Amino acid sequence: MKYDLIIIGGGPAGITAGIYAARQKLNTLLITKDFGGQVAKKAIDIENYPGFEKIPGLDLVKKFESHLKKQEVKVERDEVGKVEKTDKGFLVFTENKNKFSSTAVIVASGSDPRPLEVPGEKELIGKGVSYCSVCDGPMFRDKIVSIIGGGNAGFETAVFLSNYIKKIYILECGSEVKADKANQELVKKLGKVEIITNSALREIKGKNFVEEIVYEDLKSKKTNNLKVEGVFVEIGSQPATSFVKDLVDFNERDEIKIECETYQTKTPGLFAVGDLNVGKYKQIVTACGEGAKAALAAYEYIKKLK
Amino acid sequence: MKYDLIIIGGGPAGITAGIYAARQKLNTLLITKDFGGQVAKKAIDIENYPGFEKIPGLDLVKKFESHLKKQEVKVERDEVGKVEKTDKGFLVFTENKNKFSSTAVIVASGSDPRPLEVPGEKELIGKGVSYCSVCDGPMFRDKIVSIIGGGNAGFETAVFLSNYIKKIYILECGSEVKADKANQELVKKLGKVEIITNSALREIKGKNFVEEIVYEDLKSKKTNNLKVEGVFVEIGSQPATSFVKDLVDFNERDEIKIECETYQTKTPGLFAVGDLNVGKYKQIVTACGEGAKAALAAYEYIKKLK
Repeated sequence: MKYDLIIIGGGPAGITAGIYAARQKLNTLLITKDFGGQVAKKAIDIENYPGFEKIPGLDLVKKFESHLKKQEVKVERDEVGKVEKTDKGFLVFTENKNKFSSTAVIVASGSDPRPLEVPGEKELIGKGVSYCSVCDGPMFRDKIVSIIGGGNAGFETAVFLSNYIKKIYILECGSEVKADKANQELVKKLGKVEIITNSALREIKGKNFVEEIVYEDLKSKKTNNLKVEGVFVEIGSQPATSFVKDLVDFNERDEIKIECETYQTKTPGLFAVGDLNVGKYKQIVTACGEGAKAALAAYEYIKKLK
Repeated sequence: MKYDLIIIGGGPAGITAGIYAARQKLNTLLITKDFGGQVAKKAIDIENYPGFEKIPGLDLVKKFESHLKKQEVKVERDEVGKVEKTDKGFLVFTENKNKFSSTAVIVASGSDPRPLEVPGEKELIGKGVSYCSVCDGPMFRDKIVSIIGGGNAGFETAVFLSNYIKKIYILECGSEVKADKANQELVKKLGKVEIITNSALREIKGKNFVEEIVYEDLKSKKTNNLKVEGVFVEIGSQPATSFVKDLVDFNERDEIKIECETYQTKTPGLFAVGDLNVGKYKQIVTACGEGAKAALAAYEYIKKLK
């Protein structure tokens, strides 16, 4: 059977696209391994999604998921391996060896954490190196940890961990942190976070578990060692888009290029919304807005072909 | 005193811009007569704002408003008459003869209902002619009414009124209605709505109150009379933008032209989000997404000047 629309991804963008597609009575399949995207993996309460003054990320994800499940959208728990364009639409192949076909596709698969690519990182994943503070934070109780990356993600991780972590270092390679003012003030109040700017991580050391990190002071060019038992990597993300690489154009950050209003890629009928496109501002509510727009554009695309 | 940012409008776009601006610690003033924009004026439960499966429009507005009021944003209950560009930023003049200055301005004043412009309309406003079903609906209990406009707004008005209205005619000038499938099915189920396509309203008649409407059947070119006691006008809206007309470019529908990513108009530092820009898809969640993007873009604009 052929779907009108296949949505790839179950974060805010994909879920909103699903809600809008269902309301347009599109026969819709949403493929995702899990719901919530980055929101489910992130620490801290969400305070900037309009309508909820303060809500834990996981609670918001549950509300989104339950909103989607009230709609007539089929959900397949799987991961997409490849999308192919055919004469009549698209074929979507999954890791579980399933094959689905549709008239249009919305890619909303978000992004994966960007790795540091320093010696020791790979070897110590799960042994002190973490890309998910919500998942791994609690096992660092009363320990000293480092967070690599001085953007909002790094600062929010610091706030989240601060309840039970003894001491936190935030390493930022730039000359100033990039976190917004609200997050900077929150972190300052904690009294247990030390920020080291102009610092580039060079190595993670440890036998069975992280024992210390080595970073270069980019001003003095000197190398310093820091005793920590945890390394939280928060240096951004890379778009999860390899499965459509033959059908879209990318910018220099591997983000998918899209049309302004419809979020259509260079392949007609293929749309890209949320963290993985060239959009500069990647927020929950902007991902939702893009998901709604792409679903309405996909509806018009499908209707014209019928 | 000079603000960093003035936001004009208190609908979903303006409120979200306010939340984001406050989190960036911008010294922000939001000018609006009332909160909620179109959402506050519209009938029916909202079912497509992600996170709320079903919520009355006014309840969602209250949540938005209270979310905004938790932030450090000054609110001025007033209406803007004119925005001027100066060497150092913007001057905003209001109906209450106030003058405010700022470095950047986000226009989020939405749109007003588009009038029919037929004989009898102006004379019978408040006497059976209504542009706000939430406000005026209840006074038509057990009466026969007409709704002009077969889009989502018209259909949602029909659903809203159906609880207490005897009979509803929806007049649509096109050959088919434009409401989405979900709304069409809802209206069908009501059993008391008659849809008249290819019909162009020509006149509203009545002495002290609406008594009948005259419409032309665009196929037969014949004129028909219909006894109704109410006329709900739902033929779309016109952007509320006259106060910036010298600073922006418009499209043919008087919608403000903007840059794709930042929502900046042709005047640097002046942004336009929500129903009043050229965006094709005008939804609550898309307005919110645009408000967030423009606030972050305004923040970058202001930061560069400091």
